[in-house]
Amino acid sequence: MSSTGPTIAEVGEFPLIASLVRDLPSDPAVSVGPGDDGAVFLLDGSAVVSTDVLVEGVHFRRSWSGAEDVGRKSVAVNVADIEAMGAIPAALVVGFSAPGDLPASWAREFMTGLREESARAGVSVVGGDTTAGPVITVSITVIGQTAGIAPVRRDGAVPGDVVAIRGRLGWAAAGLVVLGRGFRSPRAVVDAQRCPEVVYGAGRQAAVAGAHAMIDVSDGLVADLGHIADASGFAINVDTSLLEVAEPITTVGMATGLDPMTWVLGGGEDHALAATFASGAVPEEWQPIGTVLDPKNVPEPTVLVDGQPWEHPGGWTHF
Amino acid sequence: MSSTGPTIAEVGEFPLIASLVRDLPSDPAVSVGPGDDGAVFLLDGSAVVSTDVLVEGVHFRRSWSGAEDVGRKSVAVNVADIEAMGAIPAALVVGFSAPGDLPASWAREFMTGLREESARAGVSVVGGDTTAGPVITVSITVIGQTAGIAPVRRDGAVPGDVVAIRGRLGWAAAGLVVLGRGFRSPRAVVDAQRCPEVVYGAGRQAAVAGAHAMIDVSDGLVADLGHIADASGFAINVDTSLLEVAEPITTVGMATGLDPMTWVLGGGEDHALAATFASGAVPEEWQPIGTVLDPKNVPEPTVLVDGQPWEHPGGWTHF
Repeated sequence: MSSTGPTIAEVGEFPLIASLVRDLPSDPAVSVGPGDDGAVFLLDGSAVVSTDVLVEGVHFRRSWSGAEDVGRKSVAVNVADIEAMGAIPAALVVGFSAPGDLPASWAREFMTGLREESARAGVSVVGGDTTAGPVITVSITVIGQTAGIAPVRRDGAVPGDVVAIRGRLGWAAAGLVVLGRGFRSPRAVVDAQRCPEVVYGAGRQAAVAGAHAMIDVSDGLVADLGHIADASGFAINVDTSLLEVAEPITTVGMATGLDPMTWVLGGGEDHALAATFASGAVPEEWQPIGTVLDPKNVPEPTVLVDGQPWEHPGGWTHF
Repeated sequence: MSSTGPTIAEVGEFPLIASLVRDLPSDPAVSVGPGDDGAVFLLDGSAVVSTDVLVEGVHFRRSWSGAEDVGRKSVAVNVADIEAMGAIPAALVVGFSAPGDLPASWAREFMTGLREESARAGVSVVGGDTTAGPVITVSITVIGQTAGIAPVRRDGAVPGDVVAIRGRLGWAAAGLVVLGRGFRSPRAVVDAQRCPEVVYGAGRQAAVAGAHAMIDVSDGLVADLGHIADASGFAINVDTSLLEVAEPITTVGMATGLDPMTWVLGGGEDHALAATFASGAVPEEWQPIGTVLDPKNVPEPTVLVDGQPWEHPGGWTHF
């Protein structure tokens, strides 16, 4: 992260945009890329779209995260939503506003991270808009394609389904605790806070396996399973004996005296996927962690943890 | 514009989102609307995508524009880009960040304007993201469809083409001058500054008529024709005797002692469309205003006004 060199005001808006979109990898599905009024690309099946806004001071801090981290994160959190529909990400556009005194190098490093993560996710950067604003604000919209498989919604869970996850839980939350106390280690959880490690392709794998319902865990496992429970009309039980508490999270728990299971159940920002499957249909790489309950036993849509209500604040509100 | 009642922090993030996306008109092409990880909709042909960010204090002021104006403008400026590709707008997503002390009524009136303009433009609001931020920042992404007609790019102009426009020029620039001097009239130009009157369907009409090149006039006529000239490799001449200077703009010119033609040639934000057509192919509703020149006469891609270089600052930079 460099803070020297010219600012984006000195470089100027149009040269900046040109430098940001230069050297983008070409994609045969994209017939018109950045530089015209709109980008044009071919999709296979229906379009699937999701948008996320990341604001400096709310979703990231420049003192905690490098520009590349922010670029990577802004792609990852959005592609995770497309994955959670069981779709294949295709293209993204980026809105970028920042104060004029931002070092141009920050904008370039942001774009490096954005491009690298886009390549990992298999998505083409096709356009964007750059403008002035009081803080860095990144808005990413990803467009995906259904490509022959019906989208996996939140409302398809049925009693007897196995609830399974793929990806990390609790890492970013533990990293936030570490950073909030002024530390930079364990490095693994700090890195997880700076940018999630999304398992690209996991959502499509679940869709191919016939997942009944799926969601991107962005607010916390219990909160997001609550969305599946509400939409589907059934209760879900999470069995904590099936939840892995990874070693670096345990370390943070011991160092702080806090219960690491709180981060696993309540922490968002790792963008694991949670899905429900018919018994026997869970893909090998997915970790079963619970079940969808029979309404004869628990009539209200809710999420239980080891059969009990979970009393911790499960969500995350920005305001 | 109300400043009383509860703030968005008091209403809470999730109820706000729910209230913002409630009562959206249904669209048979949209199979999954707001409320899941992603929205799903069917497109006819290739996807066409454009994104624009509007920042309070940069693109609008709450003291000059009502919330409904900002909602309408945010849709209009973006759909204009899809129109400029000759495509049909289909769906949009909205990213909305604002300080927690914003009156919830402002957010609701913003959504009213956004929904009404979306209905006028024939586009479905399919999703969004709401978060905290220091100033109101609106990022809209519109997805359109080619529906059987190849996109009209900026690089297709050829010598002998007629350059024509559809829509207003100079109105928003005159409105900015009026507002900047503390006045609220002529009302027509003030309203034009608050929200452009985009001629929906005009871009598709041009594409159907076989337009060679097209652009959304967002930076100013000369600046945006410059993009067509650069991309196509030919010079363009604008004949000011063919440019209408509307009555309210003339009024502002007389009141301020400024030359209204400066606003017509240099003012953006009205989002007229400019296109080039083979001679004889200009649709009746489009106003011819110039020609694409033979490189034997003017070898460099540039924009001349009545055969001369135009010395005024033609563009608009945000930083």
